[in-house]
Amino acid sequence: VSTTRRRIRIELAYDGTEYAGWQVQSDRRTIQGTLQEVLSRMHGGTPMSVRGAGRTDAGAHARGQVADCEVDTRLDDERLFHALRCLLPADLRAVALRTVSSAFNSRRDAASKTYRYRLDLSAHGDPFLARYALHHAGPFDPDAVSRALALLPGERDWSSFTAGACEIEDRVRRLTEARFTRPTPEEGWFSFTANGFLTHMVRNLVGTLLEVARGKRAPEREEEILEGKDRRLAGPGAPARGLVLWEVRY
Amino acid sequence: VSTTRRRIRIELAYDGTEYAGWQVQSDRRTIQGTLQEVLSRMHGGTPMSVRGAGRTDAGAHARGQVADCEVDTRLDDERLFHALRCLLPADLRAVALRTVSSAFNSRRDAASKTYRYRLDLSAHGDPFLARYALHHAGPFDPDAVSRALALLPGERDWSSFTAGACEIEDRVRRLTEARFTRPTPEEGWFSFTANGFLTHMVRNLVGTLLEVARGKRAPEREEEILEGKDRRLAGPGAPARGLVLWEVRY
Repeated sequence: VSTTRRRIRIELAYDGTEYAGWQVQSDRRTIQGTLQEVLSRMHGGTPMSVRGAGRTDAGAHARGQVADCEVDTRLDDERLFHALRCLLPADLRAVALRTVSSAFNSRRDAASKTYRYRLDLSAHGDPFLARYALHHAGPFDPDAVSRALALLPGERDWSSFTAGACEIEDRVRRLTEARFTRPTPEEGWFSFTANGFLTHMVRNLVGTLLEVARGKRAPEREEEILEGKDRRLAGPGAPARGLVLWEVRY
Repeated sequence: VSTTRRRIRIELAYDGTEYAGWQVQSDRRTIQGTLQEVLSRMHGGTPMSVRGAGRTDAGAHARGQVADCEVDTRLDDERLFHALRCLLPADLRAVALRTVSSAFNSRRDAASKTYRYRLDLSAHGDPFLARYALHHAGPFDPDAVSRALALLPGERDWSSFTAGACEIEDRVRRLTEARFTRPTPEEGWFSFTANGFLTHMVRNLVGTLLEVARGKRAPEREEEILEGKDRRLAGPGAPARGLVLWEVRY
């Protein structure tokens, strides 16, 4: 019986509500842990190691997460994809799978990522969006938000917008897109694209922008916050439930 | 201190996933139970009685459920609405509230109701719809479904499509609308309007129609099923998660 050891690239979509984030934890349900468990079952119990492009937070979602893993199976890509889909739970879906070069690294090779953050701007809060959006009631000044967003793109040190516990030394990232769209009066989306993101960066940006939207913070202050390189200058982080890892580009 | 005893009409939208249905149960979280609890808190602990237009199943949802309740409070409608909204959980939203005639009965006075049932027709199953739609993979023949649906409207005995345990003697209801729409290739909706529905009627209709969609059952057999007045003639019930009480008309 011949097997084929090779590296696969898996594209994933998930509702992260019932997961303690991407990263494996010994006693909690995580995206990486669930994938590794399922792949391990397909390999007769051999422990498997799955790498992901973005380490999404507990409760955050993904439309286009990319992961990679070395497998050793007689199944071709199509059958492996089918088997994986049968074993994964309904809130964690594989949407594509293919063999890639053994050198592929979904995390290191990512050229850019896009995160989106959804707002429910309805008067009364849509109960079907309670897991997928932040309900923002009260004032929302789109012009102030636009002015603040326009100040963000560029290669900058994002220390003021990262988690206090962030251990990464180099906090410079190049943000290429920061915008807000409102496809319907009740639906708002922030969208951020960068060559990389720091822990909680998007949630802290959104929390700060929502203070701008409410008129509690002048849009022009975004620059000061960035220059101060101090987390205390920015607003509170927005909850994870509105956050979606939208796309990873290579 | 003066209070105002009066009857109010409340319009509700809810994600029913984490409720054991509409009807109050001593040891489980239900829609009616949650409403009664919150209203009781607003009345210093006095037990409250809430009536609803439709007794939705465990896991089924509502966009336009209507309920009524006698209250005794100094708060006017606007303040009562606000207080209720503050106390209800995010997955159970009051969307309107007003005082009505003391004779109003949301259940008995309903002239017609519309239920919709959502299908996820995407190839891989959208994880964000796992709670709100049935993922239907494989063949879906829209023409066969249309032919079957066309046979349904009319004043009929729906015994073949009701739950085995249904204790209602009169099983005749007038169905005025039975259609299927597909706003996008991946999104399918059944829609049924009638002057009343029997227990599990919509779910059993959908389950049977999905067998028609798969080519496992001839569309013309719908009439035979109805005439047989025997639950065993129809297909299996579709799961509650795709079902939404869409609108109640008075």
